[in-house]
Amino acid sequence: MQKARIAVVGFGNVGSAAVAAIKESPDMEVAGIILRNPAKVPGVQKEVGDIPVVTDVKELGKVDVAVLGVASRAVPELAPKYLAMGINTVDSFDIHGEAVIKLRADLDKIARVHDAVAVISAGWDPGTDSMIRTVMEAIAPKGITYTNFGPGMSMGHTVAVKAIEGVEDAVSMTIPEGTGLHKRMVYVKIKEDYEFEKVAEAIKKDPYFLHDETYVYRVDDVESLIDVGHGVHMERKGVSGNTHNQRMEFIMSVTNPAATAQVMVSAARASLKQKPGCYTLPEIPPIDFIYGDKNILLFRLV
Amino acid sequence: MQKARIAVVGFGNVGSAAVAAIKESPDMEVAGIILRNPAKVPGVQKEVGDIPVVTDVKELGKVDVAVLGVASRAVPELAPKYLAMGINTVDSFDIHGEAVIKLRADLDKIARVHDAVAVISAGWDPGTDSMIRTVMEAIAPKGITYTNFGPGMSMGHTVAVKAIEGVEDAVSMTIPEGTGLHKRMVYVKIKEDYEFEKVAEAIKKDPYFLHDETYVYRVDDVESLIDVGHGVHMERKGVSGNTHNQRMEFIMSVTNPAATAQVMVSAARASLKQKPGCYTLPEIPPIDFIYGDKNILLFRLV
Repeated sequence: MQKARIAVVGFGNVGSAAVAAIKESPDMEVAGIILRNPAKVPGVQKEVGDIPVVTDVKELGKVDVAVLGVASRAVPELAPKYLAMGINTVDSFDIHGEAVIKLRADLDKIARVHDAVAVISAGWDPGTDSMIRTVMEAIAPKGITYTNFGPGMSMGHTVAVKAIEGVEDAVSMTIPEGTGLHKRMVYVKIKEDYEFEKVAEAIKKDPYFLHDETYVYRVDDVESLIDVGHGVHMERKGVSGNTHNQRMEFIMSVTNPAATAQVMVSAARASLKQKPGCYTLPEIPPIDFIYGDKNILLFRLV
Repeated sequence: MQKARIAVVGFGNVGSAAVAAIKESPDMEVAGIILRNPAKVPGVQKEVGDIPVVTDVKELGKVDVAVLGVASRAVPELAPKYLAMGINTVDSFDIHGEAVIKLRADLDKIARVHDAVAVISAGWDPGTDSMIRTVMEAIAPKGITYTNFGPGMSMGHTVAVKAIEGVEDAVSMTIPEGTGLHKRMVYVKIKEDYEFEKVAEAIKKDPYFLHDETYVYRVDDVESLIDVGHGVHMERKGVSGNTHNQRMEFIMSVTNPAATAQVMVSAARASLKQKPGCYTLPEIPPIDFIYGDKNILLFRLV
């Protein structure tokens, strides 16, 4: 079997977990790790052993898929560069709503032109949760689904806080309040010469936090607060045909970067089975994410 | 919008719930109800009003999909008849394992030849549960998934008991014992001149019951025991990449025929978006099951 060659872009929490997930996949191999500035991430080469660490995908020979372990905001600019080379991309773009729809439309055009596949928002939410929400609506088309996150550190929100001027280090915790409402508990270490109150205001006005009850606390050390466990509890009560009170729940408790990276790697596999274009997870057959002979998989899963 | 015309074959619990689900679907209409012997199901015509009740699909004009609300054991013979006319089929064939794989292979051939689509095992288990199990493996490829059914009446098992010689009426209850093990509690009313012990032995030897702890009780009246509520609790503890203890659960509590019929009707919609062939639910993109404009759906679900 020819193994699919996967490049991992970035080596943060998700990038390094993606390397682990690829190594555990019998049908894939790590083509290399791509960093803008390897000097900024010392020890990567030592950590990954024989895997090449480069600044340009062209140094890696044939690459089938690039797993983009980068901040969501970097995806719209970065993904087209790979797609234009005919390399599939997978990202975990996590800005819900219009931003996903726009990204999908933009990447779809580029992917089709270059005979490539982009799988976007391939984390657990958006991502596998989006698939579960869709399945729940197939069972009960009318009704309300509540998605309750946490308690846990939100990677997207944490990255967003860190991008705000004056923030030296930060962590954003998501606390579920039920019926899809959340508190955001943000712990920040402020850079010298910055005013905490102003930074706190900027955080609360950020699109990631604007619609949630947000509390910002000043701390001297963020590192000691970090636990990357996270969870979700989705609930739907709805109507099948004309029968009410059909109830469904999905509960998950995971180490977040490992789950996100694994979904991205599973999506990399799925990308190789789709026609050129851009896809969110509910647009892909679930079986395409899994390794193995289809009949054996269906025997076990159906 | 041209509505898809759906024929419902059979008018038992699932067939009648399928009619209700189609009526609630903005993109579909009931082409008619097909019964082998309408005289055996008195009052159907009165119950369904203007909807034609016929013995042959040819009496219904153009039909896009036939929803087969029949016993699983009737599916392998019945589905090909519709597929051969270029009509898509949806069934809720619920005999797991080899039987599903064989049915899929058989119907796939026929469907391709006649430019039709068969969606098989489109209930909630097998069916939507199969999709959830697959998504769980995309998140954590290594590990164990336990599917715990009930407590509730199993339609497949009840039909199987009723087919056994000497049984006048019956209901089979599924009681979860955890870690995917179940007790089967079977309540039977025996026909005159049959021996209860012999009937009970035949039930316990049926493939539906052979591998489970099965208790058979004799009752005088089955009807008063019937509650068609049912449920499932699926649990997976597994590994994402090299990170262990990733935990997921799916819990559902539903009126069973309504959920089964709704999934079948959602699958009828999905069948119209697939290429010719036979599909189990994990082989179909979840979004194809849902009614609506794709961008609006993705805005809400992703």
